[in-house]
Amino acid sequence: MTQVKSSIMQKNDNFYKIANQNKPHIYNEKIPLQRLIQLKPDDTKFGGVKVSESDVDKQFLSKKDLNKGDKIILDFGQHCVGKLNLHIESHGEPMDSPLYLHLKLAELPAELVIDSASYHGWISSSWIQEEYIHIDELPCDLKLPRRYAFRYVEIEVKDTSSKWSARISNPFVISESAVTMDAVAPLKIADKTLEKIDAVSIKTLHDCMQDVFEDGPKRDRRLWLGDLRLQALANYQTFKDYGLVKRCLYLFGGSITTDNRIPADVFIQPKITPDSVFLLDYSLLFVAVLKDYFWETKDQDTLNDLYPIAKRTVNEALNYVDDSGILEACDSWKLFVDWSKEIDKKVSGQAILIYALKQLVQLADIQSDPDLNFYQQKISTLSANSVNKLFDQQKGLFVSNGQLNIASQVWMVLAHVLPDEENKKLMDKSITTFFPIKGIATPYMYHHIAQALLESDHRTEAVQLIKDYWGKMIELGADTFWEAFEPDNLNFSPYGSLIINSYCHAWSCTPTYLIRKYL
Amino acid sequence: MTQVKSSIMQKNDNFYKIANQNKPHIYNEKIPLQRLIQLKPDDTKFGGVKVSESDVDKQFLSKKDLNKGDKIILDFGQHCVGKLNLHIESHGEPMDSPLYLHLKLAELPAELVIDSASYHGWISSSWIQEEYIHIDELPCDLKLPRRYAFRYVEIEVKDTSSKWSARISNPFVISESAVTMDAVAPLKIADKTLEKIDAVSIKTLHDCMQDVFEDGPKRDRRLWLGDLRLQALANYQTFKDYGLVKRCLYLFGGSITTDNRIPADVFIQPKITPDSVFLLDYSLLFVAVLKDYFWETKDQDTLNDLYPIAKRTVNEALNYVDDSGILEACDSWKLFVDWSKEIDKKVSGQAILIYALKQLVQLADIQSDPDLNFYQQKISTLSANSVNKLFDQQKGLFVSNGQLNIASQVWMVLAHVLPDEENKKLMDKSITTFFPIKGIATPYMYHHIAQALLESDHRTEAVQLIKDYWGKMIELGADTFWEAFEPDNLNFSPYGSLIINSYCHAWSCTPTYLIRKYL
Repeated sequence: MTQVKSSIMQKNDNFYKIANQNKPHIYNEKIPLQRLIQLKPDDTKFGGVKVSESDVDKQFLSKKDLNKGDKIILDFGQHCVGKLNLHIESHGEPMDSPLYLHLKLAELPAELVIDSASYHGWISSSWIQEEYIHIDELPCDLKLPRRYAFRYVEIEVKDTSSKWSARISNPFVISESAVTMDAVAPLKIADKTLEKIDAVSIKTLHDCMQDVFEDGPKRDRRLWLGDLRLQALANYQTFKDYGLVKRCLYLFGGSITTDNRIPADVFIQPKITPDSVFLLDYSLLFVAVLKDYFWETKDQDTLNDLYPIAKRTVNEALNYVDDSGILEACDSWKLFVDWSKEIDKKVSGQAILIYALKQLVQLADIQSDPDLNFYQQKISTLSANSVNKLFDQQKGLFVSNGQLNIASQVWMVLAHVLPDEENKKLMDKSITTFFPIKGIATPYMYHHIAQALLESDHRTEAVQLIKDYWGKMIELGADTFWEAFEPDNLNFSPYGSLIINSYCHAWSCTPTYLIRKYL
Repeated sequence: MTQVKSSIMQKNDNFYKIANQNKPHIYNEKIPLQRLIQLKPDDTKFGGVKVSESDVDKQFLSKKDLNKGDKIILDFGQHCVGKLNLHIESHGEPMDSPLYLHLKLAELPAELVIDSASYHGWISSSWIQEEYIHIDELPCDLKLPRRYAFRYVEIEVKDTSSKWSARISNPFVISESAVTMDAVAPLKIADKTLEKIDAVSIKTLHDCMQDVFEDGPKRDRRLWLGDLRLQALANYQTFKDYGLVKRCLYLFGGSITTDNRIPADVFIQPKITPDSVFLLDYSLLFVAVLKDYFWETKDQDTLNDLYPIAKRTVNEALNYVDDSGILEACDSWKLFVDWSKEIDKKVSGQAILIYALKQLVQLADIQSDPDLNFYQQKISTLSANSVNKLFDQQKGLFVSNGQLNIASQVWMVLAHVLPDEENKKLMDKSITTFFPIKGIATPYMYHHIAQALLESDHRTEAVQLIKDYWGKMIELGADTFWEAFEPDNLNFSPYGSLIINSYCHAWSCTPTYLIRKYL
């Protein structure tokens, strides 16, 4: 198996400069308090908690005396990415001690009932959105300096003194996004469930569109390549913010190694820093993002700049095709495909390589690249090898190192390795074999399944899947779509606790793309 | 017993204006890290903890990788009142999560080994000096916005991530005070213990001299009248900052009630606010602060402004003299004298009234006040009543509602109710009866005992008392003198935990006054 030898990042400052010339303007919106709520245990609800109106009406909040141990929960009525503001006064005798507050900011009520100290997962606990704050002098306008992703804020008074109480008034959020919701006309369709799913998708995308297409504003503010591809597609159907896609393309285009690999993600703050994580399929999909962008914009300058980068990444991947004509990832350059460690990814990798090559040849044609024929040749041989060596005629399914899994079929369908009729049959067979889907927890994989259904003439099944998966999140109280969701295992977290999950996550925003493009 | 009827605060904005014209300039000093330390349990040490050098030398601090759960303790080598600054960087892979820190700032190591959550005393836990801080981007220069009183800072890394470590460098404090230490020439005397006690007294006073004479910079930043009197006396022997005393005199002078009572304390921030706490002896002692100030400065304008206020407070106290010619405090206007609830305070109150009258007549003489004779008359009758009704000839001691206590004798000595010879005998008797002293925990009362010894020709005993009390604090590791200290009960706290005690407290700074004035 090939292994990565030397790999040194070669940053292209000129490309970074172009990326920064396309920095978005950040729009602010003032979001007022909608209501105060209280939480009660309820095993029938997501996270085991039921939301109800608080006894305190919001118009009486400013008169509510808050003393040691008192808690209130603010509900802003929508998912917000931005900064929290509160006005706080002291009431009673002169303020003879500081005010000490504990704030928890949550996207879902489920987060509020989990003790932060109980989290011991592998991802950093520093992402849990909470603060302990001392305030020496009241009245004050408290403006928390950090940006959070939240709808709910629990405020616990750790202490005042026996002489005075704290009173909170005029809470509001200043939200941040590179786009505004009114830039997209809401869908008006007969199917109200799809209409709602479309709206939540757009809100999810909106909240992830910041200085770059963020992965998830609560936690991971990096730019990820695999997520960028899906966000860009959803963006073309909705906000049409081409500058932000261009910025992100140049951030990756300026971050390629001496051995032609693009990192899976790039850090933006405090300075542009390519991560040391490399995923073969993400690197391969750079060409897809470029091709989708050019198809939308016809931006020839960007294509001229980045086409050579796209070629290098695909060429490098071709070096990993073994003697049998099948792509072989390696430990130092793995395939992602999905979080599931159970899925064998060999077939998926092969399909993604072919998919990437098919994007590349379309661009090669535009660029009148003499290598066009070479790439077309590669597609034929790789496709033939796939059918000959990976497809089980009897089962009618692709087999990945002896394993049958849905990812393999879906990516082969999307790569259109088989003629349309057989492609349809492959998907028929996949439905009978793998539906209802088990063991998949990422909207990223669900998106590709739904898209494969739509591209293989399975519209009804696609709509059903979208409703069963994304629709179910809405039933459970989602204002935005989640990083991870396994319908059969509601408490699933890739990190071991619901408190750390991101409930507004880039790669889950795609239903608006699927609905508006295919339906 | 007389009770307070109507009492409405009448603020004098003109006096407050004069107070604000005398706002001090705050001097800043940059205090570097002295060393890193570690703590080990040791029952023979104060607070049960022993300090030793850390394995990490300060010159290697900036190379020390700090990960989840790691702790370091910074020692700035002296008591500081000011703001903490740290430079923090990330080291390793790109910073893929916020840094989460827990900081504890302590005047003494004993505070660091007490879990904040274990404190349940009646004073607010919000005074415990600790912060939880998230930092989203490194490197950063962390400048904590709050002012603390501390020598030690424990920094615990709550979390980084598995990919990077935190590194801390260049910690320093910007200290704050209305005066500078170099303004006072150190005492050069043969007795090195007294020399050291004098130096620690001056440092204590220095750290409490801020925008006003603070009570204790760690916790209570109010201006207290009883403490002001002692701080002003120590200040006259050392920094000679007359403007700050003038400012404080006008803050109290501008805060008198319709029934002629001055509050025990005044809040300065966010705006000048007289407290609703009234103590009869503190109100009476306003005249003493004014007289001491005038004796030092000959500031006739201030005397002209505030003499009428001083008269009103003394006159009002005279209304509380009962038919037997003895002062009777009441529930709504108590006597402080000392924290001890066991001490009966009747005799002390009577003595303090006489003491106050003796200050007043000296000012009345300066002001050519026709009421001079009236006040001299009062002194005679109140003194006579004291001897006739409160002094037990047989015991040779004053008896307070049937109780013998040292406070009674000490205040009668300070009021010089008896002729000098008998005054000396009274103190002889007090020494044989009450020494070694039990049940007194405030430097405030110890000061008056020491001063009574010095004013009754007991120099040797006074020196011994100062060494046994203040000297003992130094032995236990005091950089500044403490709010409360009971030599026989080292864990004594008026609030139930050493973590909340103030270890740099105004009323404990007086040895420098006693040494420099009397010795």
